[in-house]
Amino acid sequence: MKLNVYLSGEIHTDWRVQIIQGCQDADLNIEFSSAITDHEESDSAGDMLGDGQLDEKQGFWRDHKSAKVNAIRTKTLIAACDIAIIRFGDKYKQWNAAFDAGYCAALNKPYITLHSSDIIHPLKEVDAAAHAWATSVDQVVASLKYLCK
Amino acid sequence: MKLNVYLSGEIHTDWRVQIIQGCQDADLNIEFSSAITDHEESDSAGDMLGDGQLDEKQGFWRDHKSAKVNAIRTKTLIAACDIAIIRFGDKYKQWNAAFDAGYCAALNKPYITLHSSDIIHPLKEVDAAAHAWATSVDQVVASLKYLCK
Amino acid sequence: MKLNVYLSGEIHTDWRVQIIQGCQDADLNIEFSSAITDHEESDSAGDMLGDGQLDEKQGFWRDHKSAKVNAIRTKTLIAACDIAIIRFGDKYKQWNAAFDAGYCAALNKPYITLHSSDIIHPLKEVDAAAHAWATSVDQVVASLKYLCK
Amino acid sequence: MKLNVYLSGEIHTDWRVQIIQGCQDADLNIEFSSAITDHEESDSAGDMLGDGQLDEKQGFWRDHKSAKVNAIRTKTLIAACDIAIIRFGDKYKQWNAAFDAGYCAALNKPYITLHSSDIIHPLKEVDAAAHAWATSVDQVVASLKYLCK
Amino acid sequence: MKLNVYLSGEIHTDWRVQIIQGCQDADLNIEFSSAITDHEESDSAGDMLGDGQLDEKQGFWRDHKSAKVNAIRTKTLIAACDIAIIRFGDKYKQWNAAFDAGYCAALNKPYITLHSSDIIHPLKEVDAAAHAWATSVDQVVASLKYLCK
Amino acid sequence: MKLNVYLSGEIHTDWRVQIIQGCQDADLNIEFSSAITDHEESDSAGDMLGDGQLDEKQGFWRDHKSAKVNAIRTKTLIAACDIAIIRFGDKYKQWNAAFDAGYCAALNKPYITLHSSDIIHPLKEVDAAAHAWATSVDQVVASLKYLCK
Amino acid sequence: MKLNVYLSGEIHTDWRVQIIQGCQDADLNIEFSSAITDHEESDSAGDMLGDGQLDEKQGFWRDHKSAKVNAIRTKTLIAACDIAIIRFGDKYKQWNAAFDAGYCAALNKPYITLHSSDIIHPLKEVDAAAHAWATSVDQVVASLKYLCK
Amino acid sequence: MKLNVYLSGEIHTDWRVQIIQGCQDADLNIEFSSAITDHEESDSAGDMLGDGQLDEKQGFWRDHKSAKVNAIRTKTLIAACDIAIIRFGDKYKQWNAAFDAGYCAALNKPYITLHSSDIIHPLKEVDAAAHAWATSVDQVVASLKYLCK
Repeated sequence: MKLNVYLSGEIHTDWRVQIIQGCQDADLNIEFSSAITDHEESDSAGDMLGDGQLDEKQGFWRDHKSAKVNAIRTKTLIAACDIAIIRFGDKYKQWNAAFDAGYCAALNKPYITLHSSDIIHPLKEVDAAAHAWATSVDQVVASLKYLCK
Repeated sequence: MKLNVYLSGEIHTDWRVQIIQGCQDADLNIEFSSAITDHEESDSAGDMLGDGQLDEKQGFWRDHKSAKVNAIRTKTLIAACDIAIIRFGDKYKQWNAAFDAGYCAALNKPYITLHSSDIIHPLKEVDAAAHAWATSVDQVVASLKYLCK
Repeated sequence: MKLNVYLSGEIHTDWRVQIIQGCQDADLNIEFSSAITDHEESDSAGDMLGDGQLDEKQGFWRDHKSAKVNAIRTKTLIAACDIAIIRFGDKYKQWNAAFDAGYCAALNKPYITLHSSDIIHPLKEVDAAAHAWATSVDQVVASLKYLCK
Repeated sequence: MKLNVYLSGEIHTDWRVQIIQGCQDADLNIEFSSAITDHEESDSAGDMLGDGQLDEKQGFWRDHKSAKVNAIRTKTLIAACDIAIIRFGDKYKQWNAAFDAGYCAALNKPYITLHSSDIIHPLKEVDAAAHAWATSVDQVVASLKYLCK
Repeated sequence: MKLNVYLSGEIHTDWRVQIIQGCQDADLNIEFSSAITDHEESDSAGDMLGDGQLDEKQGFWRDHKSAKVNAIRTKTLIAACDIAIIRFGDKYKQWNAAFDAGYCAALNKPYITLHSSDIIHPLKEVDAAAHAWATSVDQVVASLKYLCK
Repeated sequence: MKLNVYLSGEIHTDWRVQIIQGCQDADLNIEFSSAITDHEESDSAGDMLGDGQLDEKQGFWRDHKSAKVNAIRTKTLIAACDIAIIRFGDKYKQWNAAFDAGYCAALNKPYITLHSSDIIHPLKEVDAAAHAWATSVDQVVASLKYLCK
Repeated sequence: MKLNVYLSGEIHTDWRVQIIQGCQDADLNIEFSSAITDHEESDSAGDMLGDGQLDEKQGFWRDHKSAKVNAIRTKTLIAACDIAIIRFGDKYKQWNAAFDAGYCAALNKPYITLHSSDIIHPLKEVDAAAHAWATSVDQVVASLKYLCK
Repeated sequence: MKLNVYLSGEIHTDWRVQIIQGCQDADLNIEFSSAITDHEESDSAGDMLGDGQLDEKQGFWRDHKSAKVNAIRTKTLIAACDIAIIRFGDKYKQWNAAFDAGYCAALNKPYITLHSSDIIHPLKEVDAAAHAWATSVDQVVASLKYLCK
């Protein structure tokens, strides 16, 4: 089975690279997509827009513009994927990852969460709607390997 | 206009009570709904279920059972509401609130966020899909007042 | 919270009556609906239809006519309900109950299953999509009591 | 016409192989998909997940994990197919097959049932929503042959 | 069970009146709706619209205007109903009735057809998607009586 | 038939009042809803929101905030209505009215346009998806009268 | 623009062949699909199904089986097409064509009708929801030529 | 990422050509689609249709026919695209562009607006639902470049 997998979540570690590598090693027929993982690039995605009248280089409206440009990517990629892998690390708020989870749940789009045991409790609602909870990249790769048969 | 409003978010302060009170004082025609706000009650919502074979009093599966029982409430109430107010406080992960936001966004169901300025940046995706950002209960009440005309 | 609950499943025991009674005793604001529970009445629901040209008193087409008349009820009641309770007993095939579960799952309509431990394994797919698994009528009533708060 | 066909149902006989072979012999332009047919493999699909805290090697939660991993496959394949063939044999509960039928019905996705005459009565609801009832693999192949014209 | 029933089809006999009467006699809790049954009134529903520049008193555009005004009724009433009864008589083209049937089928909205045996063959597609075929008003009333339990 | 009608369009003349009056005179069972018609009130609907960091009293972001608050009203009211009446006058851009028309069209929600002959050509796309074109308030009232039968 | 076009309607003349030929001559990038046009083949599509218990070689149930097998084709092809061309000739009831029109309308799927002026009045509802009315194959080909630009 | 982009809006300047050129220069993997940009061709798209009985060479019905033929294009292309770019110039009513925006908003299909600062106020509703506002072709190309990563 060929799969289209969207990788959502924290962009501060290389967990995406690890999963893609693991799936390549297992010779899986998967097409991966992701949000932009360069933090600065992602935050400045909307800087060039508008008419320069308002000083939006920082603050609410600057973030608003970039978040909406990035939302075009997210919406499109989630619509196109078969499954999403949603990663929660131990740092940062990661509300955008939880937001993606709720978005998938409403569309009946399956997702697998990737996080450690110590944040089980605050992630219980996100995990309740998930189709699997993995604690390591290996578990994710094993799941994708099974799904590709 | 009569409105059905769902109040989502942290259950550690009395922000819900304040909004309901403010709307009552303004004589607004609003029916409010909410998740269960008693923390212990909410966490133990699934304890009575099952066959007792597995020791689920704590850990992943105990949270899983309660989160899914609570999800029945959330799904039903979000489906029934016209707008959701989603509150983010300064403590706690609050991933369930961000999850509710994504869920609403996918269903094209409007929501208003309520949070302070210092978490603008991590909430940018949630705010990008919101229809308004309020920093105080008064701003929420003022919005609802306008919407009820 | 007021709930509309659809009771699906085997019509050979009085489990429905027990749940309705338990909820009445707890003074819950619930409106219950159900398939027709009289076996003979349900099976003959389509007998009066058609032009009598074909002898359909038994066999595939007789069941086909009654099943489609009953499907009008089921579709309408599932559409109107907030939650379904789906009961699996120890006898009979009960494929219509599993069918109702799949139907609810596709529509993102939450349901609670009611069955004993000895059929956990063959019901794993039905339970995977459920929001709770109850082993007794008391557990169902307790869940509904919580949901009505 | 090119068709994408999902084969759902009991995994204890080789009915899938027979249908695929029959369609190949007839030179039909069909892409087949299926749930995992190795019983042990399917049941252990979720074993590698989680944090090992809970002893889930058997019982409700072990089945729960595997069923949800398999549900990712099922949801994806049903979404991608044009028609599903749903097989009911004379053994086993096969509630997952009836569940798939209900799921397809809710999505207005056509399916053909494959079963013998002696289980007509308990399958009447599943057959009521089906687009055809076949009693043999030959009838299924003949239907697919017609549909591919 | 309370039902909302839409009566679609030929407006040249009093079959609607008969069904409504029969259901009243049986004391059923049904709210009926229908297209406008006065032929002249229905055909002239759009006559008052427009700017009088084009002479639309007859011909394609006159019918176009009235058909679209009537379509507002039909769309609204079909959306609101639980079941539609679609009648085919022995005269007239009745393409609007078949159109209503297809419209209901796409929305998974159940309908019952009412027609005699001699037009079984040309109505086979309409009947294939129907939930029941009645040959007389009495059969329709009996079905509604059963559905209201 | 009881109708819920949304009145969309220019807020610079009293066309809404005329329609409501005409329908009252005809004793029609209609519930009307509308955007806020006080221009200043509508434009300042978002002024109280935010943290005051950015000077949004005018310009793009000030309009953005108010337009999104008003969009909560519009979305909710369009969802609740059976039909929308969309008015185009001879002044002003009225892009929000055309926006409402496209929104309704995508949801298969019927609407009637109200405008004079001299803007037929630029409104051709909006009229193509409409269910009727009226040139005067009287024509709208006559249509609603017919629809309420 | 590449188009996928479904040809629905009477199967007693060669109108399909004419349209396909005309589009080939104009070198258009169109993929055509259609119901089975061999009358006998289409009517016997379900004959091989079932268990032979009931004598279904003619009458309601024989037509029911074939119509449902053909419905699998129709549903799949309509779902896949961009536009449908729906032809009404001067003979036969053609209720299946009107049914297809209603089905497309509910799904907001555009269609073009092809028929002569003398049946304008009975087709007014079908034409009201259509995106164009053509009176000849040439007009259809011209429309498709324009749409392919 | 490969994108399918629909270019909607005024057809009196060459803004489309500029965007396509800019994206080609940046070597982006984008497939562009558009409404027909030849004004005369677009307006006469329906002229060949019908039976010549009514003199429709100008006026409401002539525009009605062409607008509906063009709507087949628009519906199909919007359905197929990932994003729409909606341009508003300083001349003309451009109600069809605002209509397209509303249509996209209802389908949760993201769009970017392209217009100058002096029409910010009348476009506030269209911009409120947009995912970005660009003031120049360069800003659009920069956005698409970012989205294609």
